Amino acid sequence: MKNRKKIYEGKAKILYEGPEPGTLIQYFKDDATAFNAQKKAILEGKGVLNNKISEFIMTRLGGMGIANHFIKRLNLREQLIREVEIIPLEVVCRNVVAGSLAQRLGQEEGTALPRSIIEFYYKKDELGDPMVTEEHITAFNWASTQEIDDILAMTVRINDYLSGMFAAVGITLVDFKIEFGRVWENDFARVILADEISPDSCRLWDTTSGEKLDKDRFRRDLGDVIESYAEVARRLGIMKDMPTVIQGGLH
Amino acid sequence: MKNRKKIYEGKAKILYEGPEPGTLIQYFKDDATAFNAQKKAILEGKGVLNNKISEFIMTRLGGMGIANHFIKRLNLREQLIREVEIIPLEVVCRNVVAGSLAQRLGQEEGTALPRSIIEFYYKKDELGDPMVTEEHITAFNWASTQEIDDILAMTVRINDYLSGMFAAVGITLVDFKIEFGRVWENDFARVILADEISPDSCRLWDTTSGEKLDKDRFRRDLGDVIESYAEVARRLGIMKDMPTVIQGGLH
Repeated sequence: MKNRKKIYEGKAKILYEGPEPGTLIQYFKDDATAFNAQKKAILEGKGVLNNKISEFIMTRLGGMGIANHFIKRLNLREQLIREVEIIPLEVVCRNVVAGSLAQRLGQEEGTALPRSIIEFYYKKDELGDPMVTEEHITAFNWASTQEIDDILAMTVRINDYLSGMFAAVGITLVDFKIEFGRVWENDFARVILADEISPDSCRLWDTTSGEKLDKDRFRRDLGDVIESYAEVARRLGIMKDMPTVIQGGLH
Repeated sequence: MKNRKKIYEGKAKILYEGPEPGTLIQYFKDDATAFNAQKKAILEGKGVLNNKISEFIMTRLGGMGIANHFIKRLNLREQLIREVEIIPLEVVCRNVVAGSLAQRLGQEEGTALPRSIIEFYYKKDELGDPMVTEEHITAFNWASTQEIDDILAMTVRINDYLSGMFAAVGITLVDFKIEFGRVWENDFARVILADEISPDSCRLWDTTSGEKLDKDRFRRDLGDVIESYAEVARRLGIMKDMPTVIQGGLH
């Protein structure tokens, strides 16, 4: 595995060439970054947890007919995925006011939204991932109108499924960020869910206590980041085959 | 006129109580501000020019059936308008890449857009007028879905009319910002165009030379601000009844 070709290295993951054409290996790092990488740290065990949580979620979404890039988990930190052409958008779906919605629009964090809001951000670190509308997306050819419609429909379904899944284990899905990519099937480009879904990309609040169980613990220096990620995994019933070192981190 | 009640003072205009219920007097100041009022100046004659240019445009839009708040011009700096409940949105319509679209999204200024883009900004100085989507607008009750539809339809018509009007006098309408308000008619709220349309709120480029004839001359310290506003008025054929001091400013 030492000589395999690195395709791309992001803030939290590395993509390597896969064993077959059209596949890649997605490696989950322990690196945590926030505020467009102005804040950085290594959180031991995060990659292992996110690999497992994302496997769990992607597998279930696939079972619901929501096509995604996940093929199978290979080991503690790696999963085999389909190679996609990433659409340069971060798709954010919100159920409760938090984060940039609270700050940018002066709304109170924790307020339930009357209905879910879906936002698009243009993936461009140099520009700080600016919010964009469907009109910008089509004007600059980042995605077609049909692709946007597909993305919106999938995002609504993903939100419904994940909201139910987390509610069942006492967690409120406040918001989440997902990414999509194109795959070609018989000269026809299809949009599928890509990247990851984990406490790095979701806001997850304990429904009873309101305690944050996600990356905001890192962003806001609340401590117990890994313990909270492990708590999410435990509630989803996926801690049993975790390494003892991470299980031991629980409290 | 000294004792009349001031209703509101903005950066470029003052609103006074009008002679009858449901009317206001809109006074055009010479104050120029940019970058959320971080840059300020007094540009002598600007208020007189904008009052006249906005009268000209609002009258013509009214003649096309685009309802707006303008009733009549009272004097050099004042116009009688209908009182509206301002909808807290700045509606921006763009035909060519410029300004924040160039900076925020890393696009080249001057690039013609494949089709016009309409953007909404939440009017809130403390937040720097953040861009919002239709979903934010309805979630936070700033306007209803029906009002947004009406605003979009009117904005498309205004863009078509003004693009044609300016093209006829050798000016490219790059983009413009408008505001809307509610009026009540038999317990029914209707949306009408409000505020002003002037070189303060439009980007206007000489079609041949590309020279800027709008507030960007102030924002970017290009000089000849008033002379450019007067040039716009002259091309629209509305300089004949201007005070000599402003006519003399032409070159």
